[in-house]
Amino acid sequence: MTNSPIEAINVEPRLLCGPGPANISPDVLAALSKPLLGHLDPDMFEILTELAAMTARVYQRDEGDGVTLPISATGTSGMEAGIAALVEPGSTVIIGVNGYFGRRLVEIANRYHANVVEVEADWGQAVTNEALLEALAANPDARLMAVVHAETSSGVRHDLAELGEAMKDNDTFLMADCVTALGGIEVALSAWGVDYAYSCSQKCLAMSPGMSPISISQRAVDFMRSQPKPNTFYLDPQLLEAYWLTRPPAYHHTLPSPLVFGLHEALREVLNEGLEARWARHAEAGAYLQAAMAERNMELLADPAHQLPQLTAVLVPEGIDGAGVQKQMLREHGIEIGGGLPGAPAMWRFGLMGYNANTATADKVLAAFDAVMADAPTLAAA
Amino acid sequence: MTNSPIEAINVEPRLLCGPGPANISPDVLAALSKPLLGHLDPDMFEILTELAAMTARVYQRDEGDGVTLPISATGTSGMEAGIAALVEPGSTVIIGVNGYFGRRLVEIANRYHANVVEVEADWGQAVTNEALLEALAANPDARLMAVVHAETSSGVRHDLAELGEAMKDNDTFLMADCVTALGGIEVALSAWGVDYAYSCSQKCLAMSPGMSPISISQRAVDFMRSQPKPNTFYLDPQLLEAYWLTRPPAYHHTLPSPLVFGLHEALREVLNEGLEARWARHAEAGAYLQAAMAERNMELLADPAHQLPQLTAVLVPEGIDGAGVQKQMLREHGIEIGGGLPGAPAMWRFGLMGYNANTATADKVLAAFDAVMADAPTLAAA
Repeated sequence: MTNSPIEAINVEPRLLCGPGPANISPDVLAALSKPLLGHLDPDMFEILTELAAMTARVYQRDEGDGVTLPISATGTSGMEAGIAALVEPGSTVIIGVNGYFGRRLVEIANRYHANVVEVEADWGQAVTNEALLEALAANPDARLMAVVHAETSSGVRHDLAELGEAMKDNDTFLMADCVTALGGIEVALSAWGVDYAYSCSQKCLAMSPGMSPISISQRAVDFMRSQPKPNTFYLDPQLLEAYWLTRPPAYHHTLPSPLVFGLHEALREVLNEGLEARWARHAEAGAYLQAAMAERNMELLADPAHQLPQLTAVLVPEGIDGAGVQKQMLREHGIEIGGGLPGAPAMWRFGLMGYNANTATADKVLAAFDAVMADAPTLAAA
Repeated sequence: MTNSPIEAINVEPRLLCGPGPANISPDVLAALSKPLLGHLDPDMFEILTELAAMTARVYQRDEGDGVTLPISATGTSGMEAGIAALVEPGSTVIIGVNGYFGRRLVEIANRYHANVVEVEADWGQAVTNEALLEALAANPDARLMAVVHAETSSGVRHDLAELGEAMKDNDTFLMADCVTALGGIEVALSAWGVDYAYSCSQKCLAMSPGMSPISISQRAVDFMRSQPKPNTFYLDPQLLEAYWLTRPPAYHHTLPSPLVFGLHEALREVLNEGLEARWARHAEAGAYLQAAMAERNMELLADPAHQLPQLTAVLVPEGIDGAGVQKQMLREHGIEIGGGLPGAPAMWRFGLMGYNANTATADKVLAAFDAVMADAPTLAAA
């Protein structure tokens, strides 16, 4: 590059209605630019204690059950932290795969040299608990069963409560990807017996990306303590616990205070609204958008019985240039919607998450979609 | 916890003159709360290209030499990413240890099952290049030589240019911890032959914590490409490169856009100021503070020949309650200074970094320090 001066960034506000990040409230946005606070400041530890406790409430992890805190990195770091801490080379890991993020779980488990047993379903279908439990019966010593509670790449919900119930007397740990679930649909980790869950900050919690809330059951914490140290230092849950929750704390990393402040404000908003009210709001907005798409003869990818409200995957009609439609939505209407991730059928992904989960936002997206589709770019023209 | 409402965070502004985070400019603070932008937005990729190129300029990594980009996590993630990608179980790694962060390098290398050769020096002393090169002569197949360019725990600078020169015809990779160095003292990776460097955003670059700029030489990039995939997915430099630098990009993680915008603005400020002017400003401020401490008969920890300007470790005089002094600085004057990290002698750490690297800030710190020390808490009273 030349040495010419770089211009400051000028960001045009977007309506973010893809798979996330979603828009955030003015108060959460403002919290990101509060004055910085040091990671060892005594006032910081009061904030961390509150933030960890709020995270546990949103996950419905019972007080005294294990460890819940946010990692200072994005959602995939929470996925990796769990595998790194629970899996040894050769451990059997059963993974439900019906989309991109199940596939990512397989990728990470393979990197940690697990013996991976994949239980697959087609894009748009839920992996059945029957098939997962069959795999568990065939691999009774499996260390871990991992499923994607809300598959961001397809909009499919997993019947996690039912799987937890079926596994409740089992020694195999149950892991759930709650990246798109948390704050948008019911999550009840202690009641369901989920041993390890991870999520992100930028979807139904309505914060910016950058933090990954994780929650570990007491029995999984006890197991981790009995194991050799994992390779990873940055993502080691025990080191994170020693900083976030133990008093006096043991320094681990320099906390990104803007993200901590933002997440604190976002979780306050979640709890002030109430979990059930928030799920109901997501359910209403999602059903509204999905009905509107059906009225327009658009085909939804997900099995209706497992359709998430907060993420709607719409198949691109034959001949239409899906990427071109996305581009026009962005450039002509300032609205971000998602496309398909690698391996997916041609689709658009519409998210109504967190601050955006309401019918008024759905109406804005639908109006723009109708305007673009009235003269939609076609593949031949692309 | 009870279900009582949590109050919003109210942060009293601090003058942050410990080992970091340091204060940031109003423009950088404002950049943190620009509207969110999606990680796959076409406008984002222009920003990423600029940001990676600015990062390379600040590191003085030549155009075309390897890969330079920031990781979406704090400084220690950059330390771990390098070890995870360059070291295999059994690889010999020579590490210079003269403080807490050299010790952390040993900890992480051990977690990755390296054969670690430690070359130690006392707190406050530099590890000599002579001793490091002797260790290299005794371990000619060493995969990696790692040193801490600016030891945040003691304020000691390593003679990195000299070590690079001595190793320039060597196959052993040279890694440098530039966490406290970058933006504050000269760093010239390509000229010095540093194969892997990592830093943070919250010290002399004057951004919030949350990003870890890394820079990898071409020969180290080529080596990584020849190796099996590392365990880590989140911190795999090749996956980060495929998202940050390759076009079209391959999705890897959901970028924390507030931190990206903040770092973009912070690096703009660094480059607009000019690297040499910035180093000179740090040198002046640090020398001023250090002279003032000497006038007060305070003993500095670091060997004067290797004293960093941006980080000054002052030994706590006998009988004084060091932690009590820190607390009074914070509570009575709103100034954060650091204490010693685990294993260190009793000390205070004064940082004049980035936005704070000026004599006016030093005067504020000194005035508060004098006021507290006029009636300093003693250990007997503590």
